[in-house]
Amino acid sequence: MPDLPPPFLYPSRIRFVDTDASQRIHYTAMFRHFEAAEMEWLRAGGCPYSDSRMAGVTFPRVHVECDFQAELRFDDLVTVALTVERIGTSSFTMVFAVSSGDRQCARGKIVVVCIDRGTQRPCPIPSALLDSIQRQLAK
Amino acid sequence: MPDLPPPFLYPSRIRFVDTDASQRIHYTAMFRHFEAAEMEWLRAGGCPYSDSRMAGVTFPRVHVECDFQAELRFDDLVTVALTVERIGTSSFTMVFAVSSGDRQCARGKIVVVCIDRGTQRPCPIPSALLDSIQRQLAK
Amino acid sequence: MPDLPPPFLYPSRIRFVDTDASQRIHYTAMFRHFEAAEMEWLRAGGCPYSDSRMAGVTFPRVHVECDFQAELRFDDLVTVALTVERIGTSSFTMVFAVSSGDRQCARGKIVVVCIDRGTQRPCPIPSALLDSIQRQLAK
Amino acid sequence: MPDLPPPFLYPSRIRFVDTDASQRIHYTAMFRHFEAAEMEWLRAGGCPYSDSRMAGVTFPRVHVECDFQAELRFDDLVTVALTVERIGTSSFTMVFAVSSGDRQCARGKIVVVCIDRGTQRPCPIPSALLDSIQRQLAK
Repeated sequence: MPDLPPPFLYPSRIRFVDTDASQRIHYTAMFRHFEAAEMEWLRAGGCPYSDSRMAGVTFPRVHVECDFQAELRFDDLVTVALTVERIGTSSFTMVFAVSSGDRQCARGKIVVVCIDRGTQRPCPIPSALLDSIQRQLAK
Repeated sequence: MPDLPPPFLYPSRIRFVDTDASQRIHYTAMFRHFEAAEMEWLRAGGCPYSDSRMAGVTFPRVHVECDFQAELRFDDLVTVALTVERIGTSSFTMVFAVSSGDRQCARGKIVVVCIDRGTQRPCPIPSALLDSIQRQLAK
Repeated sequence: MPDLPPPFLYPSRIRFVDTDASQRIHYTAMFRHFEAAEMEWLRAGGCPYSDSRMAGVTFPRVHVECDFQAELRFDDLVTVALTVERIGTSSFTMVFAVSSGDRQCARGKIVVVCIDRGTQRPCPIPSALLDSIQRQLAK
Repeated sequence: MPDLPPPFLYPSRIRFVDTDASQRIHYTAMFRHFEAAEMEWLRAGGCPYSDSRMAGVTFPRVHVECDFQAELRFDDLVTVALTVERIGTSSFTMVFAVSSGDRQCARGKIVVVCIDRGTQRPCPIPSALLDSIQRQLAK
């Protein structure tokens, strides 16, 4: 990711529940690791989604994708590298690169949109969240 | 289950996401099949949890258990037999027996309590739900 | 999907375990519905992945994506429309369109590659599977 | 747990995917946290299930249960306290107590049986695993 800010690194462990009968990770499980990385990244920036300053907003994902490049198995230790590819008015795009040792295993992308709980319409990224994201990108 | 009412039968299929690297079902997946059976049982009785008559109540589980008796594998077709073991004032107990062909594979039990969303305290089983349960038991 | 073959239609129900604290579907749950549709589509074509003719092959996903267009909630009934966008030598691409009533709710894409269990390398799509896919597309 | 050995303590975080539309944890998610605690407990004892000394054995659960005593919500930090209630010849029983701050939130129990992959019959607990368990209990 040459032009992106330096990523936030989140170590995670492939659990047994993450695997399937192919003896590799089931692809849906990877998204749980992305989610954990996202939450700890925001917490590190000072504004997790559970922060009371964001009580009126929800954060559905409007696009998610993942490419799987190498297999992952039970108990593998991975690093999820998260960075931000784009910040819009009411949405932002995270990219994820998962490695295990020196193997690149997966690359993902998630687009989050901010929705006002009252109107159920897109709203600007809450300032506390925007500050958190920018603080993380400036590290 | 000799003394219990005749069960509601729900056919279900073991999915790939239900399996793990042991090539059998991951035990947590069984509970998803229990949940599907429970929902279709209530629907058949005329009162799913999504019914507007129950908007002020939630239905957390205060006890869940399962015994696994025989392995289940990807794509196995199972029958979940659900019946009610006990109906209290604000809670009820469902029991589940899962078979695949003539093999008994699992037996489960779930205790649901009715919680008033406003007070966050137990409340009587809503009458629409109680009617639904009793209608099913009388079949 | 104007240029694609007519889809296989799979009805499914949003379960409680599929939802999250936003009171909508958690995005990872959608992929479980895609998987169920895929399995029933292959079964309808005569060759589920569990067929013994494919015992030496696994079917990991190398790319998955989904766009979420409208919210889905607990107990919503959906139709997953599956068709095939591309058939290669050792891989194929399925596309999914999820609707609930007349609302388009999600569009997904999954690329499956066939991997020989022995060599762990891509192999041609097994002929039983290829026949199944083509039989379905010709309907 | 007055008569049991001192527990292994595993800190964990309730994730968004763990919640459901009741805005509390979905009960099946609790078992993922139990599993993570179990894996780190065995690793701390020197013998995770992924250890090559146990390649011929699988560890299905024959009984699982959980009582839910207090609600858990998104982003709550919990401690999973794991200890062993019983060690048999081919099985062992773990108990789990989950707290968040000073609230007791859940108590669980899981019985694991050791199955020889070849015979698919119960076999003695592998000595490396037994040593790991006993090493942990002696701490």
